[in-house]
Amino acid sequence: MPETPVPSTATSDPLRILITGSAGFVGSHLVERFLNEGHTVIGVDNYISGQVSNTDLFSDHPRFTFIEADVSHGIPYTGEKLDWVMHFASPASPPHYQQFPVETLMVGAQGTQNGLELAHAHGAGFFLASTSEVYGDPHVHPQPETYWGNVNPIGVRSCYDEAKRYAEAITMAYHRSRGVNTRIIRIFNTYGPRMRPDDGRVITNFVHQALRGEPLTVYGDGSQTRSFQYIDDLVEGISRLMMVDYHGPVNLGNPDEFTLLELAELISELCSRKLAIENRALPLDDPRQRKPDISTAKNILGWLPLVDVRSGMNKTAINEKNRIY
Amino acid sequence: MPETPVPSTATSDPLRILITGSAGFVGSHLVERFLNEGHTVIGVDNYISGQVSNTDLFSDHPRFTFIEADVSHGIPYTGEKLDWVMHFASPASPPHYQQFPVETLMVGAQGTQNGLELAHAHGAGFFLASTSEVYGDPHVHPQPETYWGNVNPIGVRSCYDEAKRYAEAITMAYHRSRGVNTRIIRIFNTYGPRMRPDDGRVITNFVHQALRGEPLTVYGDGSQTRSFQYIDDLVEGISRLMMVDYHGPVNLGNPDEFTLLELAELISELCSRKLAIENRALPLDDPRQRKPDISTAKNILGWLPLVDVRSGMNKTAINEKNRIY
Repeated sequence: MPETPVPSTATSDPLRILITGSAGFVGSHLVERFLNEGHTVIGVDNYISGQVSNTDLFSDHPRFTFIEADVSHGIPYTGEKLDWVMHFASPASPPHYQQFPVETLMVGAQGTQNGLELAHAHGAGFFLASTSEVYGDPHVHPQPETYWGNVNPIGVRSCYDEAKRYAEAITMAYHRSRGVNTRIIRIFNTYGPRMRPDDGRVITNFVHQALRGEPLTVYGDGSQTRSFQYIDDLVEGISRLMMVDYHGPVNLGNPDEFTLLELAELISELCSRKLAIENRALPLDDPRQRKPDISTAKNILGWLPLVDVRSGMNKTAINEKNRIY
Repeated sequence: MPETPVPSTATSDPLRILITGSAGFVGSHLVERFLNEGHTVIGVDNYISGQVSNTDLFSDHPRFTFIEADVSHGIPYTGEKLDWVMHFASPASPPHYQQFPVETLMVGAQGTQNGLELAHAHGAGFFLASTSEVYGDPHVHPQPETYWGNVNPIGVRSCYDEAKRYAEAITMAYHRSRGVNTRIIRIFNTYGPRMRPDDGRVITNFVHQALRGEPLTVYGDGSQTRSFQYIDDLVEGISRLMMVDYHGPVNLGNPDEFTLLELAELISELCSRKLAIENRALPLDDPRQRKPDISTAKNILGWLPLVDVRSGMNKTAINEKNRIY
């Protein structure tokens, strides 16, 4: 890690930042961070998978405005000059995007392009939330940004995977041919407070099952490994990337791997009681195993994930208990 | 090959068919075939890479109508019920799509979706022209439809490759979630009369250089192989696929391979004189070698390419001589 202070939005002059998907999990944490740092934030969401409660958190804040809109049909912002357009709108968990395949495709194509056009018109930066799903079912482990991926273009997950690959392609096209100042991150599995309780991914499932006193659902025998990044680490990486002049994609994720059974034990420990485990058959489209190569983020941002899974799950459980139960 | 006659549009009742990209190379040959078979054709093109001369060929035909429009912004058709919407609009040669990266991305996303919506509204079939470029720089030779490809999502060719992968994904999404009767073909290198003389791909280059009496340009040492399908074979495969109930992607291409030097000799033979060859350095983004596995088309359509490269180049040269020189 570099010894000189790393530039981030924490030390920049006040910015005016528009965030699509502001009522989503990652979007809402960005809103919180930028408001805390003194920036002005315009949130946009259509609540297709975002949560009204994530908007309500900031609705009284003097530097927060909210626009309810479907960004695939345009971003109706008419205010002062923006410094950043950050495109975080999209269903992101498999049950959600498979419920809304066409909307997911549209927010990747028209939604991204509307964001790029808005950024271009304002001379603002454009920040794309892409995903480790662009690597598909990878043949290379861990995945560096130079790996081109292994995605089925016609599969049931392609509405998300191909939408995000397209979003990267059009972001690069606007960067190359129209000079837009762009950033692309590929977000690996991330968890934390304010995810939808029905998100469907394992840490959220475990935390909410534990809080409700239900058995933990483990698909398969639980020996498969996953890696998880706590939301605060992701937000720190985003904030640093905004301040450097780098236009290629950057992986942001935590490479530490755990088996599902290890996670189940960990949450039992945090609850100070042994939680029952209910084994179920693996779904046909079981999420593929991915593990980020984070050398790029280390090198250009001096960034490393700092929150271990024990402390991240604990923070998540405490927050969610207060928020929902 | 099956011994029973294979259904094709040649034997179907008269259809009303809208073709986007009707002034393009493949589009114009589809218009010609369908008019000859007694169908009604509505052509749509914005001439970004199509040629006005390809519309003029049919402008006096009583069953042909032309709409000049950019299908990425909507398809302004208000006529009688359509049987088919065939989406063939897109810049397709590397120099063209790299000149219009954003337009190429848009016609793959918004253009495809506008076609799907029109087909849905009319209860019509939707036919997508996809491409062997979805296989990218393949690690599997020859490429079957089940191969997921190896495409760089952020490269200079991604504006075309990712647009077509997205087009396939949204076509499958409308098929699965909205019941649209869809077809997808992946077109491998195809040549014939009515390509743009500046198309930039090797057979077109050679034919026009020969007709102009110029030396043939060979990039690299000419030992690299390519395979080429004559346009009539492609059109026959399209016509047959319209008549079968099959929704997965179908490769249409000619697996016979030739080195560039063999092609250069062939065109010298056809001209009955030895043409000079001018070697140039390979461009950085030299088209990747691909060769179709055509088992699917053989099995479900009883289709095989029938025109060999000697006779196809001869037909092309004669036609282009009359058309242009």
